[in-house]
Amino acid sequence: MKLTIGVIGAGRIGQLHIDYLRKHPNIRIKWVSDINCDKLADWIEQQGIENSTKDHHDILNDPEVDAVIICSPTDTHVDIIKAACEKGKHIFCEKPISLTLSESLEAVKCVEEAGVKLQMGFNRRFDRNFSTLQKALKDRTLGEIQSLRITSRDPAPPPIEYVKHSGGLFMDMSIHDFDMARYLMQSEVVEVYAKGAALVNPDLKEINDIDTAIVTLTFENGALCVIENCRRSVYGYDQRIEVLGDKGSISAGNENTNTLTFAYADGIKQDNPPFFFLERYKKAYEIEMNAFIESIINDENVSCSIIDGLKAQEIAEKCKESLIKGMPVKINS
Amino acid sequence: MKLTIGVIGAGRIGQLHIDYLRKHPNIRIKWVSDINCDKLADWIEQQGIENSTKDHHDILNDPEVDAVIICSPTDTHVDIIKAACEKGKHIFCEKPISLTLSESLEAVKCVEEAGVKLQMGFNRRFDRNFSTLQKALKDRTLGEIQSLRITSRDPAPPPIEYVKHSGGLFMDMSIHDFDMARYLMQSEVVEVYAKGAALVNPDLKEINDIDTAIVTLTFENGALCVIENCRRSVYGYDQRIEVLGDKGSISAGNENTNTLTFAYADGIKQDNPPFFFLERYKKAYEIEMNAFIESIINDENVSCSIIDGLKAQEIAEKCKESLIKGMPVKINS
Amino acid sequence: MKLTIGVIGAGRIGQLHIDYLRKHPNIRIKWVSDINCDKLADWIEQQGIENSTKDHHDILNDPEVDAVIICSPTDTHVDIIKAACEKGKHIFCEKPISLTLSESLEAVKCVEEAGVKLQMGFNRRFDRNFSTLQKALKDRTLGEIQSLRITSRDPAPPPIEYVKHSGGLFMDMSIHDFDMARYLMQSEVVEVYAKGAALVNPDLKEINDIDTAIVTLTFENGALCVIENCRRSVYGYDQRIEVLGDKGSISAGNENTNTLTFAYADGIKQDNPPFFFLERYKKAYEIEMNAFIESIINDENVSCSIIDGLKAQEIAEKCKESLIKGMPVKINS
Amino acid sequence: MKLTIGVIGAGRIGQLHIDYLRKHPNIRIKWVSDINCDKLADWIEQQGIENSTKDHHDILNDPEVDAVIICSPTDTHVDIIKAACEKGKHIFCEKPISLTLSESLEAVKCVEEAGVKLQMGFNRRFDRNFSTLQKALKDRTLGEIQSLRITSRDPAPPPIEYVKHSGGLFMDMSIHDFDMARYLMQSEVVEVYAKGAALVNPDLKEINDIDTAIVTLTFENGALCVIENCRRSVYGYDQRIEVLGDKGSISAGNENTNTLTFAYADGIKQDNPPFFFLERYKKAYEIEMNAFIESIINDENVSCSIIDGLKAQEIAEKCKESLIKGMPVKINS
Repeated sequence: MKLTIGVIGAGRIGQLHIDYLRKHPNIRIKWVSDINCDKLADWIEQQGIENSTKDHHDILNDPEVDAVIICSPTDTHVDIIKAACEKGKHIFCEKPISLTLSESLEAVKCVEEAGVKLQMGFNRRFDRNFSTLQKALKDRTLGEIQSLRITSRDPAPPPIEYVKHSGGLFMDMSIHDFDMARYLMQSEVVEVYAKGAALVNPDLKEINDIDTAIVTLTFENGALCVIENCRRSVYGYDQRIEVLGDKGSISAGNENTNTLTFAYADGIKQDNPPFFFLERYKKAYEIEMNAFIESIINDENVSCSIIDGLKAQEIAEKCKESLIKGMPVKINS
Repeated sequence: MKLTIGVIGAGRIGQLHIDYLRKHPNIRIKWVSDINCDKLADWIEQQGIENSTKDHHDILNDPEVDAVIICSPTDTHVDIIKAACEKGKHIFCEKPISLTLSESLEAVKCVEEAGVKLQMGFNRRFDRNFSTLQKALKDRTLGEIQSLRITSRDPAPPPIEYVKHSGGLFMDMSIHDFDMARYLMQSEVVEVYAKGAALVNPDLKEINDIDTAIVTLTFENGALCVIENCRRSVYGYDQRIEVLGDKGSISAGNENTNTLTFAYADGIKQDNPPFFFLERYKKAYEIEMNAFIESIINDENVSCSIIDGLKAQEIAEKCKESLIKGMPVKINS
Repeated sequence: MKLTIGVIGAGRIGQLHIDYLRKHPNIRIKWVSDINCDKLADWIEQQGIENSTKDHHDILNDPEVDAVIICSPTDTHVDIIKAACEKGKHIFCEKPISLTLSESLEAVKCVEEAGVKLQMGFNRRFDRNFSTLQKALKDRTLGEIQSLRITSRDPAPPPIEYVKHSGGLFMDMSIHDFDMARYLMQSEVVEVYAKGAALVNPDLKEINDIDTAIVTLTFENGALCVIENCRRSVYGYDQRIEVLGDKGSISAGNENTNTLTFAYADGIKQDNPPFFFLERYKKAYEIEMNAFIESIINDENVSCSIIDGLKAQEIAEKCKESLIKGMPVKINS
Repeated sequence: MKLTIGVIGAGRIGQLHIDYLRKHPNIRIKWVSDINCDKLADWIEQQGIENSTKDHHDILNDPEVDAVIICSPTDTHVDIIKAACEKGKHIFCEKPISLTLSESLEAVKCVEEAGVKLQMGFNRRFDRNFSTLQKALKDRTLGEIQSLRITSRDPAPPPIEYVKHSGGLFMDMSIHDFDMARYLMQSEVVEVYAKGAALVNPDLKEINDIDTAIVTLTFENGALCVIENCRRSVYGYDQRIEVLGDKGSISAGNENTNTLTFAYADGIKQDNPPFFFLERYKKAYEIEMNAFIESIINDENVSCSIIDGLKAQEIAEKCKESLIKGMPVKINS
C-alpha cells in the first residue's frame, strides 16, 4: 500500500523528513507547502515532489492526500490540525502542539472526534539507546524505579530572536525531556519543581527566560526524576539518561562521532560528539517517520499520541509556574 | 619532628586511621581509648599501641600527647572537642561535628579561642579524582560554572537501628556531598530544595527518614547544583561528579575494581566497583591523615576546617527543613 | 548526471548494494543478472529494477549501461572484468579480483588498456573510524609510524563447504586487513610471516586451511604490522586497529549496538557489538558505492584501484607460502 | 613470626622494596648492602635500617638473617644466589637471573640442592588485573584459548649506556612479557619468531639492539601469542593484555591516573596513564613481596620460581636467535 502525503513547512526539519520520505517505498510525496516555496523551487524539484504551494489548504483539499506532516511554526499547528481533521487526514505534528494548553486541548478534541491518527514528533523515543532503555524498563529489568536522571544540553544557544518566540526553555527544549521521562517511567508526573537561571546569556533575563535549569519531577508511582538542561555545552550536543532501580541501574551514554582514541604526550583524546540533533537523531527521525507510516498502513495506534504531546506541554507550563513562584507545583492527573 | 597522638574511638573508622598512622614515620600512637577496649586488647597490642583506656580523658591529660583523632560516636564529638581545646590538643574529628547547629557553634567557638588546629574528616576531598577536579576548577579550567552534579549512592542501606541515631539521610550521608559541593564550587550555598522519599525501605517513613533524595542547591555565585542520593545501589558504591562551565565539562567517573573486560556470547561485562567507602577511599583516608599531620608539623592551615564542618551541617539541616515544608529554604550566609 | 548501471550477481552482497543504489538520486538500475534470477523475480520487481537476466552479457551488450557492479562468485570476476572492458563499461568489483595472481594480472592489463574505471570493494576503507584514522596518518599526526595492529575476527566460522572454495583464510578474510594495512601505512609490504592453525575447527586441517592466524608484515618504510585473525569470536564481529608512532598512538575501537550500560549486583554489562559485516559496515558500503558513482560522474581516480586489489592478493598469496614453509617470505615490490 | 632480612642493592628497585618492607609487621630489615652505601647513609638511617655495608657477604654471614632481597645489577645475581644458597638463606631475586642460560642453570642447581626458597621478581604477576585474568583463565572461563596478545610499551627509551649492558630488548624488557605469556597460558612455548627494528633510535643498530618488536609465540597446547614491544610510547607506560578463547575474550586495559574526563570545544580528553612501572606496579610490588614473606613463614611454594626465571630467559635467548637468523626458532621443552 502506498500513502500519498503532503509536507507542510519545508524548513530545516521539514527538509529532513522529506529527505527520508522521498526514498520510502510506500510513500508518494505529492505536495509541499511553505511560505518560501518560491525560493525553494529548485530544491523541491530536485526532490521530485510533484506540487508546491504557499497555502497548505491546497494540500488539505486534495482528496488523494492521506496524511500531512506538519513542520511549520508552532503557532500554526493547532489551526492546521483542526483543518486536517475536518478533511480526515492523518497527521504527523512536530512538537509542541501549541504554546497554550487551552489551544492544545481544542486540537486534542478535534483529533478525537475526527478519529484520525496523530503522531507527535518526539523523535528521541526512537533513538536506538532510549528505545532499548524503555523496553528494558517496561520489561521490569530494574524492578521498581527509585530515580531517573536526564541530562540534555544543546551545543550553543539559539539566537535571542528565536528564543523570544520559542515559548521559553521548558516549552522549547525541556519538553523533549518531559516526554522522555513519561515515556520511560510509564507513570504520570504529579509534582514539579524547577530551578533555573540565565547563566550563559544574562540578556535572557530581560525576556524572562533562562538557559540553565534543574527540574525535579515526582511521579505518581513515587519515583523521583531530575532533568538537567543547559542551552550551551561547548563540547557538543549531550543527551544522556540514567535510571536507578531495585536491581541496579541502566545508563545511556552520549553518542560518539567515531571510536578513535588519540593518545599523545599531553593526554588522551577523543573527537567531540555529533554536533546537534540533526546529526545525533538522523536515524531516530527515520524510525519515527516509518512508525507513523506503519501505524496508518496497518491501522495501529500511533507510538506517540497527541495526549503525550499535551502531557509534556502541561509539565512545561507547570515548570514555568514553579520557576516564577519559586515553589513546587502540583499537577492533577 | 614526631607527633604523639591518641585515637579516641577504635571502631571501624578508628581502626582504619590507626592502620595508616602506625606506619607513619612521624607518628607515635601513644594512646587509644574505646569503651570496648577490653575486647580490643589483642588487636591493640598487635598494633604496637602503648596504652589503652576506656576514658579519653586519660589521653587528654597526658602532656606528651600533641593531637587526638576523634572517631567516637557523633553525640560525643562536641564534649571531646571542648575538653581537647582546654588541654591545647590539636584535633582531627570525623564528620559531622554534632547533630545540632547550636552545639557545633559552641565547638567552633572553643576551637577558635584555644587556637588549636581542627581538621574535619571529609575524606572525599582527598580522593585522587575529586582533588584533581577541584584543582582544575580553582584554576578556572572551565571558566564560570553553570551547574554541578554529584551522584552518591551507598551499596546497601544501613540497619534501621543505625539510621535512627544517624541524624537522617542529609546529616549522615549527604553531608559529604554538601561539603564536596562547597569544596568544588568555592562559593556558599544560598538556597536548598530537597525532595526525597523512602523508596528502598518504606519502614523509614515511621522514623521520618528517607533513603532516596534529589537536592537542588543554589550558590552565591549563581551556579546550580543537584545532588542525587540513594542508600542502595545494588551494583556497588557509586560516587561520581560532573561540572558544566563556560569552557566545557569535567566528569569524575566511578572507580573500578580492575580494568578487565569480559566479552561473552551473551554480552560484554566488567566487575562491580569497589564495594564501599573503606575500599574506595582507602588511599584518600591516608592522604587526609597525612595532610593533618603536615599541617601540625608545618604549622599551616588545615585543609578542611571546623567552619567547613559547620557549613555542611547547616546545609543538611536546611535540607531537612525543606523536605518537611515541601518548599525551598534560604540560607543566610 | 544520471548513471545507468547493471548489477551482476544478486546474492547477499549484491542485494545490499542494490538497496542503496535504488535510492540514489543519480542512479538508474536498469539491469540485474543472477543465475537464480527466476527465484528472485518478486524481489527484483519490488526493487523497481527494469530488467533481469541469467546472462550478464545482456547487461554488457546494452549500450545504455555506463557501469557494472560485480557481485558474482570470485571465479567469475576476471572474465566479467575482461568482457566489461571490451564494452567500455566502468566496473565496481567485489574483492578479491581472483584466486590466482596471473589471472588478476590479466584483468589489470585489460582495465589499463580499456581506460575504464575499476573500483575494488574494500569497504572498510570507507568505515567512519578507519577513514578518519587514515586521514590522521596521512596528515602525519603521529609522525613516523613504528607499528600497526589490526584485529579482525568474524563472529562464527562459515560452513566448511564455503571455506573449500574461499581461497583460504588469507585470501578470503585477511585480504581485507592486508588492504587496510597498505591503505593506512601508505607504504608497500616487503616481507610477510604468517603463523596459523585450525584451533576453532580442527577439520580445516584436512582441507589445508586454518581459522586462527597471526601475520607479521614488514613495510618498505620500516614499520612493522601485526594482523590477528580468527574465524570465530563468540561475542560478535570485532574490527579494531591501533597505530603507534613518534607522537603517540591512535586506536580505533569496535562499534557498539547501543551506548547503554547495565549495572547489576553481579557485574556491569553492555550489549554485544553489531553482529557481522552487513550490520557493522552498512554505512561504509553506502559511502563506498557513492565514491564509485562520484568518481565516474566527476571523472576522478577511484579511491581503491585494481592495483590495490592486486597488491592485497599478492600479500595473501605470500602469507599462504609463508605458512606452508614455516618461514618469512619476501615480496619484491 | 618475624623474618630478618637483608637487602642487597639499594638502587631504585631496592629502595622501592625497602619502602614496603620497613612497614611490614613481620619484617626486620637488619641489613642493606650497596657499593654506594656511604652516599646513601642518610637515607638508610631514615629508613631505620640497622646496618649497612658495601659487601653483601656481611649480610650472608649474619646467622640471624633469614632471607635476602637481591636488587643488585644482573651480572652479580648468580654469584650472590650461589653464596646465599651456601648459607641457607631464602632468596628474592629481581629478573633476569643472568644474561646467559648456562650461568642461570648453575644457579638453578644450587637453589635446588640447597633447598632454599627463591622467588623471581616478575612483579606483573601480582598486578590486580593480570592476576585476576590468570585466575579466570585457570578456571577455564574462556575454555580453550586460541590466541593471546600482550602489548607492552615503555614511556621512553633508557640511555644507550644502560641498553648496552641490558642484554638487549628481549632480555631486558620483553622477558616480563614472556613470563606473563607462560603464566597466563599455563603451557610451554615451543616456537618463537621475532621481528624487530631500531625505529625509535636508529643508533641502536650499532650495538645490535632494537627498540620495536613483534614476537610470535607458539604454545605446546597449540595457542598462538603475539607480543608487541616498543621502548617508547610518548603517551605513557602501556601494559595491556587480550585473550581469545572458545567462550569469548578477556582484555585487561591500561591503568589510569584518575577517572576524569574533560570535555572541551576541541575534543574530549583524559590524563595520561601512570608514568612508568614504579607508579603502575607499586601495589603489585607490595603484593609480590608479601607473597615471598608468606611463602617463607608458611613454608609454601613460591609463586614464581627460579624455573620460571629460566624459562623466560630461554625464550628471550631464542627470540634473539630468531631475530638474527630471520627465521622462527624451536624450543625443546
